[in-house]
This record gives sequence, structure tokens and C-alpha cells, in this order.
Amino acid sequence: MTRSLSIAALTTLAASTLAAQTPNAPARAAQLHVGSDTVAGALPPVTPGPTIAAYQATVDRIVDAAVKDSTAWKRMAELTDTFGPRLAGSDALEKALDWVLARMKDDGLQNVRGEPVMVPHWVRGAESAELVTPTRRKSLTILGLGGTVGTPPNGITAPVVVVSDFDELQRRAADVKGKIVLIDAPFVSYGETVMYRALGASRAAKLGAVAMLLRSVASYSMNTPHTGGLRYDSTVARIPAAAVTVEDAMLMHRMQQRGQPITVTLKLGAHVLPDVPSKNVVGELVGREKPDEIVIVSGHMDSWDVGQGAMDDAGGVAVSWEAVKLLKRLGLTPRRTIRVVGWTNEENGARGGQGYAKAHAAEAAKHVFAMESDNGAFRPLGMGVTASDSAVAILRQVGALLGRMNAAALTLGGGGTDVGPLAQLGVPVGEPEVDGSKYFWFHHTNADTPDKLDPADMAKLVGVIAAYAYVIADLPEPLPRGTPRTSSR
Amino acid sequence: MTRSLSIAALTTLAASTLAAQTPNAPARAAQLHVGSDTVAGALPPVTPGPTIAAYQATVDRIVDAAVKDSTAWKRMAELTDTFGPRLAGSDALEKALDWVLARMKDDGLQNVRGEPVMVPHWVRGAESAELVTPTRRKSLTILGLGGTVGTPPNGITAPVVVVSDFDELQRRAADVKGKIVLIDAPFVSYGETVMYRALGASRAAKLGAVAMLLRSVASYSMNTPHTGGLRYDSTVARIPAAAVTVEDAMLMHRMQQRGQPITVTLKLGAHVLPDVPSKNVVGELVGREKPDEIVIVSGHMDSWDVGQGAMDDAGGVAVSWEAVKLLKRLGLTPRRTIRVVGWTNEENGARGGQGYAKAHAAEAAKHVFAMESDNGAFRPLGMGVTASDSAVAILRQVGALLGRMNAAALTLGGGGTDVGPLAQLGVPVGEPEVDGSKYFWFHHTNADTPDKLDPADMAKLVGVIAAYAYVIADLPEPLPRGTPRTSSR
Repeated sequence: MTRSLSIAALTTLAASTLAAQTPNAPARAAQLHVGSDTVAGALPPVTPGPTIAAYQATVDRIVDAAVKDSTAWKRMAELTDTFGPRLAGSDALEKALDWVLARMKDDGLQNVRGEPVMVPHWVRGAESAELVTPTRRKSLTILGLGGTVGTPPNGITAPVVVVSDFDELQRRAADVKGKIVLIDAPFVSYGETVMYRALGASRAAKLGAVAMLLRSVASYSMNTPHTGGLRYDSTVARIPAAAVTVEDAMLMHRMQQRGQPITVTLKLGAHVLPDVPSKNVVGELVGREKPDEIVIVSGHMDSWDVGQGAMDDAGGVAVSWEAVKLLKRLGLTPRRTIRVVGWTNEENGARGGQGYAKAHAAEAAKHVFAMESDNGAFRPLGMGVTASDSAVAILRQVGALLGRMNAAALTLGGGGTDVGPLAQLGVPVGEPEVDGSKYFWFHHTNADTPDKLDPADMAKLVGVIAAYAYVIADLPEPLPRGTPRTSSR
Repeated sequence: MTRSLSIAALTTLAASTLAAQTPNAPARAAQLHVGSDTVAGALPPVTPGPTIAAYQATVDRIVDAAVKDSTAWKRMAELTDTFGPRLAGSDALEKALDWVLARMKDDGLQNVRGEPVMVPHWVRGAESAELVTPTRRKSLTILGLGGTVGTPPNGITAPVVVVSDFDELQRRAADVKGKIVLIDAPFVSYGETVMYRALGASRAAKLGAVAMLLRSVASYSMNTPHTGGLRYDSTVARIPAAAVTVEDAMLMHRMQQRGQPITVTLKLGAHVLPDVPSKNVVGELVGREKPDEIVIVSGHMDSWDVGQGAMDDAGGVAVSWEAVKLLKRLGLTPRRTIRVVGWTNEENGARGGQGYAKAHAAEAAKHVFAMESDNGAFRPLGMGVTASDSAVAILRQVGALLGRMNAAALTLGGGGTDVGPLAQLGVPVGEPEVDGSKYFWFHHTNADTPDKLDPADMAKLVGVIAAYAYVIADLPEPLPRGTPRTSSR
């Protein structure tokens, strides 16, 4: 996933295997309003000038065709039903990538190809956790964190110390040695809370803890564990780390508050295998005048190894892909090339986006705009962009063409993990803004399944992506580059 | 659980091991509005006459004291954290019952005792299901249905036929022999949808199916399986039956729609052991004038063997128990005795309620009113009752005393599984009406944990139960008996 990345985060991420899961995002996450038709922090509406206003009829045609069609949802469902979750290194991911390439060829897309990159190969293995004391043996519902080391085969059995945050961890530093630390930090926002997943294991290890358990980073729970990447500090021991459910974290916290000694046995079979070859999957609608100038629409093909990776992010791939198919079907070939990319390894390495930027560095100047849809293919509200003042001025006008479907909002700071390396090369980037009010209910869980996305909302999102991509790819001049605008004033 | 039982259902249930899980409830379930302060189907407001109006100050005192106190939530949490889920026959249930008796004695309740009954002892055992074809091996998330027979140790591997309802099952009768039938019936209401859980296995067996899988009876799912009782038809073979998640049911349905052959391996270790002794737990606030006349407040102590049985129904026990403690603390001893009962074996036998009615049959006429709180200890809206016209006329006035806290609604048809046998003996019965809009999110699942109940809402519910119990137990005359009123006109 990414949700609400600042450009600062994008910059950080390109060099990080933690991908989008840094604590850099809170400002923008707080800014973005979800659950209604208004988007807080969006720039005020503008009236398009004559150049862009001339596209209104075409945009209407795109949107009208998009909303009649549920192909994006069906493809997302077929892909995720057939291949299941698709972690980097898995056979499922490679088969899914090949399936997409075959279907893109069937669709008549041009220059369909896999672009090879090497990806990490972390394997979860068997895992379990059991509450041994105080009162009854009880299985805890867990998911090892992505990248965790394993435990010895018999597991680690140790007393548990529960803390609510890093301050309390520091205050209880003397209690932690030889213990399992459970961080029971309530969800505030992803940006604020995910730091415990990212950094908790090493912070606990620094104080002598033998393992770290984390309250799942979740805005709602039905006893639902959430996985996601962690980041080991190379200066301290790597200790095993797993997410427990919100419910089980609260249970153990209550036990501690009652003065009951808590003991857990944690077994994680996680291990790392050598890197394996993978690929970004690419297809094109070649531009009629400037085929070497590129607008990217994209999502990521990989997922964590749970659920079906439907919301995160097969849906993003499906809407981006369908947007290009739609333009093709309507006979709308823009001046420039629109390139759909299904990235590999967003979740635990970001090697797909990094590899693309490296391989295409010489053509970076020819990349006019790069979009990634990775906020869940929910009802569209607008677009979030990281682009120069003058590009933003143009993009606001493009957004205004979507006022009819309440998707005219333009916010600043958007992008996506996999287009981050392109942003570092100066490419304007963006991501659809959507109603992500339930995003962190399903994120990185077994509940990330096709039913969580709505065919009609996905169809609207296809329209938004297709409209932006078409207009940007067809404008007489490419989007102006320059220092990204960061303030809405 | 019970939710929204009609008196017809109550009558049926006393003789049924399916307890509240019959399809008899839809009329009342549809009538009951949840999620706001209004209760559809409630009788119009009334102004209390002088006899009942005289209780307003006392009711206000009860409510004021109730809402200041979160003991009910804390007790529910301690009970369920300590003993976990409490299926009839389990050691956990018996230990929990003993714990309640000890705490009731600590509280200074009178005549604290266990009243013995024998209960069934069904054991889930190890269970699993695996999707073998069409495309990938995938574990299905299941819960065997309560009372299911097991499979052979190596499981049952068979093709799956997916149907949406019993009509489709009949239409596909020729396809079913030797197959596993998956009933993917979307949730309409509990009353309407639960019949597939109750009857599905035998309906499928009649056509030669070898096992039955059921889409969980759930109004929301985060890949959450819901267990609950089934009812075998004695004229056909007993086949194993398990609930799959809504997500997995939809997955297999999509596969069938794509023309893909589906095969599942189902392993259930379920088996039945001999009946074991259990008990209803009882404590009293003995009446000052008519100690042999009884008002019951109650909930059930047992639960299914998943989650913590917090909503269903430790919360109901806790609020009923706390209501009696509250009256005691306030020095409010009514004319009649208020008896708090924690029933055993509501979920898979109803032997607690049946045993009580049998043991106390001779004193049935002395039971003035019997309440059971088993709709989840959520925000109170009023009371649902099964009582004579003249009793209803009185109960409406009692409800009016709770207008200040928006809990004045009186609806017809309420009760609870465990007070059903008393209703058959002519005792007026009732159940608190609550905002149960999320009840079927958590019902019979691993997500039924203390966090799903709110301390402030439970405190309000304590006030409502205490107010009703006190006034009814203190009125000069007992509630009049007679044929229950069934129409709100």
C-alpha cells in the first residue's frame, strides 16, 4: 500500500525497504477528509481555461462509458480469486504477472512486456502464539510482521510487558530485559501509529526484549490481525515480531492492569531466501504524435501473503489497466503514450519502482506524469499530486472537468511508493484520492477480498484515471516541471 | 443468544435443542428498529397513572446512580478474560459459574446457590477445510456448526455445488448426490437467514449430499466465521456441516459462475460426549413483604466455544446482576424478591431454562415477571414484553418513567430463550430492547470480545433493568396474567 504519502516520504522511501510504511505521512493523512464528497485540504475549484475546457466533451464521453462497465471489478476478482495473495518471491505472484501479460496481449495493448527486477524472498512459515498464563491457555491470533526473523523451533516463552507507546517503553526500560514487549498503541492515524510496527522491534530489542508483539495497526477489528513490514535497526539484535489482534492486545493489557503475570509462547517460522527474479508488467496505448513521451497509470501487483490482496492493490492495477482499455475502445489515442504498469514488490522492497526508475533513468525527462492508484479502488474524490506550481495550475483545471462526478478535488502531496523514484527524477506524480474510510479495516489482512470493493465505484475510478491520463497525454505541451508545490495557499 | 423472539418462537424453543435459532422470529425482528433512538413497532407513549408516577423519583435515583458506575462492564470483562468462551460441558463454564457464585456471596446477595441441571456435551475438536481446486490450494476459514457430526479422520473430499437458497437446492437436486453443498444465502435478517444453518444439512443430506457448508449468518464480515446450532432431521443421514466466511462463500460462488469445478476437503473432529452436570447460578434480593413472589432478571452464562462470549451473553448476566447490586447499594428493597439468574446452556440445549421451569413449576404462579437480557448489552431503547393486555398497560407506564433516558419504548413479543419455559407456564416475560445494529457482526464469532460493549451503555442498561425490576417487584399488585397481547393497535 501507500496511503497519503508526502513528497518527503516519497524521497525517503526510494531508499527504504519499508516502502510506504514510514511515519512521514501524518500531515497529509490528517489533511485528507474521507467518508464524504468533500476533501479537506483540496485546492479551491477553478474554471478551466479554453485549452483544457475544450476537453470537456471528451472527458464526459470517457466518464459516461466508464460508469457503464464493471470489467475492472471482474478482472480484479478473477485475478485475486485465481492467484490469491501475491507476495514477492512467491510462485503466485509470478503466475499472476504472466496472466496479466497474456490478458494485456489479448486486449490488444501495445508493447506488452515484463521488465525484469530482482525481488526479496521473505517467507512467513508456520506461526503461532499462545497465552500460557495467567488463567487459561488461549491461542492468540497473530501474523508475523513482514521481514521478521523466526524464533527457535520450540518458540520463545517469556513474560509479557505491555506498554502503550514508546514513552512508556522507555519508562519501563528496567522491566523489559528477557521479556516479550507488547506495544498496545491505539490507532490514531496510519502515519502516526505505523511507527510502532516499523520501529517497535528494534526499540524493544535495544532494552533487552526477546520478542515484540504489536497491536495491529487497524482502525477497526473483528479479531483481525494486520501484517506489514518492519525495519530492523542494524545496531541491535533482530528479535522476532508479530502483530496480535486489537482484541488480544487489549485483553493482555487488561490482565496487566489487574496485576496478573502474563506469559506467551511465540513461534515464528519466518525466514529469508535468496532474491528471485520478478518483473513489472507493462502495456501501452502508443501516442499518435509523441510516442516517446509517457504518462504512467499504475498499481502494484504484489501483496502481502494474506487475504487476496484485492484492495491492496489488485484493484489499483485493474482500474489503471481498464482506463487504458477504455480509451482504446473509444478510439481515443492521445498525442503521447499512456503506459500501464503493474509494479512488483511494492510491499516489502519497492524494487519494482526502483528498478523501473533505474532502467528508464535516461528517459526520465520524457515521463510527463506518473500516477499510481494504491489507496484502494474506492469511490473517487479527486487527485493528489506532487508537481510544480505551474503543473498544479494545469492539473486543477483537468480536475474541474470531473466536477460532474464530484471528483474535482486536487490535493497536494500525493504519489505512490512505486512512482516515488520517478518523482526523485523530477517527474510530476499523483494518485487518485478516494473514500478510504475503511481502508485500514482491511489493509494487510485476510479480509482484503474482492467484496470489499464496489464495481460501481471502481467504474467511476476508471473514468477519473482515464480522463486525467488522456488529457495530460494529449495537451499541446507536457506538464511543466519544477519544485513541487507543497502549500494549498 | 436470542434476539427478537416471538412468543410462538418461545413456545417452539422450549422443546428444541436449537434454542433461539429457529426461523420463527422474522416478524418481530423486522419490526424492531435499531441504530437510532426510535423503536419501530413500539406502543405510543403514555402518561403514568398516580400509582406508577409515584415511582418517578426512585427511578431517577436508580438511573442517576447506575450511569455513574462501570462495574458491569468491568465484571463482564474480568469474567470473560479469565474463563474465555464457556460452552456447555466445558470446564471453563463450570469454573465461571463457581466464580459467579463466589462473587455473588461477596456482594452480599441472599440465597446464593447453583441449581443443578444436566447439559449436553458437544465438542468441536480439530477442524479444517481446504479448497483443492480449481486453481490453488487455499485454507478456508471455518467453524463447524454446533452439534455437527465429525468427518472421517482423513476428511471428506468432494466436489462443491453452490446454491443461493433452498429453491435452488431443489432445482439442482440431480447434481447434489455425493457432493458438498455450499449454501451461499446472503443475510436478510437473522430470522429469515438462520433457517439455512438450522435446516441446511438435512435438506442437503436428503438429496444425497455428503457435507454441507454454509455462508456464515452475518450482517458484516471481516473474514469472520460464525458458528451456531444446527438441527438434524431424524429421518435422514447426519452429514457434517460447517460455516465458511461470507468471503469464502462468495469466492466459491464466483468460481462456480466462471464454470470452474470446485473441490474441498473438509475435516471436522466434532463429537458428542455424555451429558454432564451443570447449574443455573442464582442470587437474590429478598422482598420485604412478599418474599415468595419473584421477579427474575437474567442472562446466560454459557456461550459458544469461540471468542469470549462477552456480548453473547456475559454482558447480559453482568447488567442483570449489577441491577440487583445497585438496588441493594441504594437500600431499595422492594415488596417482592428480585432473583438474578445466570442460565446455563442457552446456546445448545436450553436445558438451564427448561430445568428451572421444571424445578420451579409449583411456584410458577409466584413468578411475577421474568426478564432475560440476551440481545447484547448495548444502549437501551426500552423493553420488549410478552404479557397480557392489562400487564402491558402497566408496563407501558413503567417504561414512561425512563423517558428521560430515551428508553421508554415498549414493544410486544419480547422474551428470551431461558424464560420461554416460564412464559409457557403463564409468567409474563420480557427482554431489554437495545441498539443491536452490530449484533450480527459479532454473534457466535471470535470477535465477540469485551471491547464490543461500551461501559456507558452497559451502565444505562443496568439502570433500565433495575428500574423495571424494582417497580414491578414493588407494585401493590402483581402483574396481571392472561393471554399475551400481540398487536400494537
